[in-house]
Amino acid sequence: GEEEISSPSMPAFLRTHRERLAADAVVICDGSLLAPDLPLISHGVRGMAYLEVEVRGPATDLHSGTFGGAVDNPFNVLVRLLARLQDPETGRVTVPGFYDRVRPIDEEERLLLAQVPMGEEQARQLAGVCALGGGETAFSPLERISLRPTLDIHGMPGGFTGEGKKTVIPARALAKVSMRLVPDQDPVEIAGLFRHFLESLAPCTVTLQVRTLGTARPASCDYRHPAVRAADRAFSLAFGRAPVYMRGGGSLPIVPELQDVLGAPVVLMGLGLPDDNAHAPNEKLHLPTFYRGVQALVHYYALLAEDA
Amino acid sequence: GEEEISSPSMPAFLRTHRERLAADAVVICDGSLLAPDLPLISHGVRGMAYLEVEVRGPATDLHSGTFGGAVDNPFNVLVRLLARLQDPETGRVTVPGFYDRVRPIDEEERLLLAQVPMGEEQARQLAGVCALGGGETAFSPLERISLRPTLDIHGMPGGFTGEGKKTVIPARALAKVSMRLVPDQDPVEIAGLFRHFLESLAPCTVTLQVRTLGTARPASCDYRHPAVRAADRAFSLAFGRAPVYMRGGGSLPIVPELQDVLGAPVVLMGLGLPDDNAHAPNEKLHLPTFYRGVQALVHYYALLAEDA
Repeated sequence: GEEEISSPSMPAFLRTHRERLAADAVVICDGSLLAPDLPLISHGVRGMAYLEVEVRGPATDLHSGTFGGAVDNPFNVLVRLLARLQDPETGRVTVPGFYDRVRPIDEEERLLLAQVPMGEEQARQLAGVCALGGGETAFSPLERISLRPTLDIHGMPGGFTGEGKKTVIPARALAKVSMRLVPDQDPVEIAGLFRHFLESLAPCTVTLQVRTLGTARPASCDYRHPAVRAADRAFSLAFGRAPVYMRGGGSLPIVPELQDVLGAPVVLMGLGLPDDNAHAPNEKLHLPTFYRGVQALVHYYALLAEDA
Repeated sequence: GEEEISSPSMPAFLRTHRERLAADAVVICDGSLLAPDLPLISHGVRGMAYLEVEVRGPATDLHSGTFGGAVDNPFNVLVRLLARLQDPETGRVTVPGFYDRVRPIDEEERLLLAQVPMGEEQARQLAGVCALGGGETAFSPLERISLRPTLDIHGMPGGFTGEGKKTVIPARALAKVSMRLVPDQDPVEIAGLFRHFLESLAPCTVTLQVRTLGTARPASCDYRHPAVRAADRAFSLAFGRAPVYMRGGGSLPIVPELQDVLGAPVVLMGLGLPDDNAHAPNEKLHLPTFYRGVQALVHYYALLAEDA
């Protein structure tokens, strides 16, 4: 019952009951198929480091008519700092050491991902943008949302955000920034690298604080493992076609936790659909897909037994 | 009675009654002395162009776990655009043409300003910052807040600004930006240059809109004009010391309006004090200064009559 509050008791529970929970594989029915007739196996999730950057300038808000030009404006400083986090040409994150532990993309996995029938035009329409972009130009959009790390600014609190105009030099400016991470990046290490990089760039006219609001580790499992092969066959039998493989772009902290504590691969056999409005108003479940999913799981148990 | 709503009827009124209002000089008792014993004549005001920059990306907010890396995040784009507006080394605004009409600082006026007894350490304490900064490094802090134009970001609405973390790729990101302007910059022209510059930088992955929220023209008058010399002598008689001269850093749209329509210099003889909390809670008026100001104005009328 703790899933929506980040399962604070789960890690300790897993460790306490490690032996009773011993298993050859873990199956989680979280996530989505790509379409009702297009099953998907997620053999991994991205991790995350979520940070809040605060730039403090004057002790109180000042008037730009009185002090504009003599006082470094925290927002002017903050946009300069944030703009340095990503190379505008290559889309690469510029935090030193950021890519050091990123596992190179396995050529077989790249081909597997290329089989996902999601063209750029379809992805563009799904996202509702005039053109895709924003990630590393050296990788395809599908690679960028599943196999590569990213950096996103989610909001910038502080100062004047109402209707109309107000000429304040705000005492502080903030930014919410997260980085999605991939194996074998360590979110705590990445948060430290991020903080050190910004500290090295911040001018002496302001005070910089970088707070970690949350971390989640990335994970992936071997898609050639017998438990994954069995899931592949179970989906094929129930849905009439073989599943595609794609590591999930989101974060599920329980996945690396289960893999580490139990030493077993975690297979994600999601039975939702992309338009289910998960966690949003009018959330739904497509019943025909749900029933076919139940059939897939029945096949799965039988196939696992055969393998064993 | 319209002063606090930007006097919308005033320009038309001035033009209609131009002949009845004809005068050799206009005196406005708005603004402050620098201290109770330090009268100040403001022989000008800065202008302003206040703009709202909006970057639109996806049609609706997206989840960074699903789309992070494939979709250009409006905030990531916006910080890159805003960071390009000012040279981090020189502090100069980089909008092409921005300085074209800026009148060079008159050497005599520079010396006059240097007589203002406001040291950098005092200004730093007044602003409540760890170090002054943020403007053009080629000019002193006093020059930067009175004789030079500036650019300030006041707030950046959009996305997630609450407590904690949310991993949204916002549909839009905004910024409130104003530029304080000096003679002979034209705020409407500057707003256009600003918009063109950002449009030239914006990537095709987003839609950019730049809206003008307000403009005010800069103004200055000749501090050697007889009406200013009379104000100097009047202040000297009432306060026991000669006033210092400093063009105001804020904007008073009525000043250029009066100068243009009446063809007369506008002298600002403010009787407030810097700690009056103007327009803020606990606003006050220092009565001894007010009474000395009344005496100064009595002297002023007499001295003007002598000159005439």
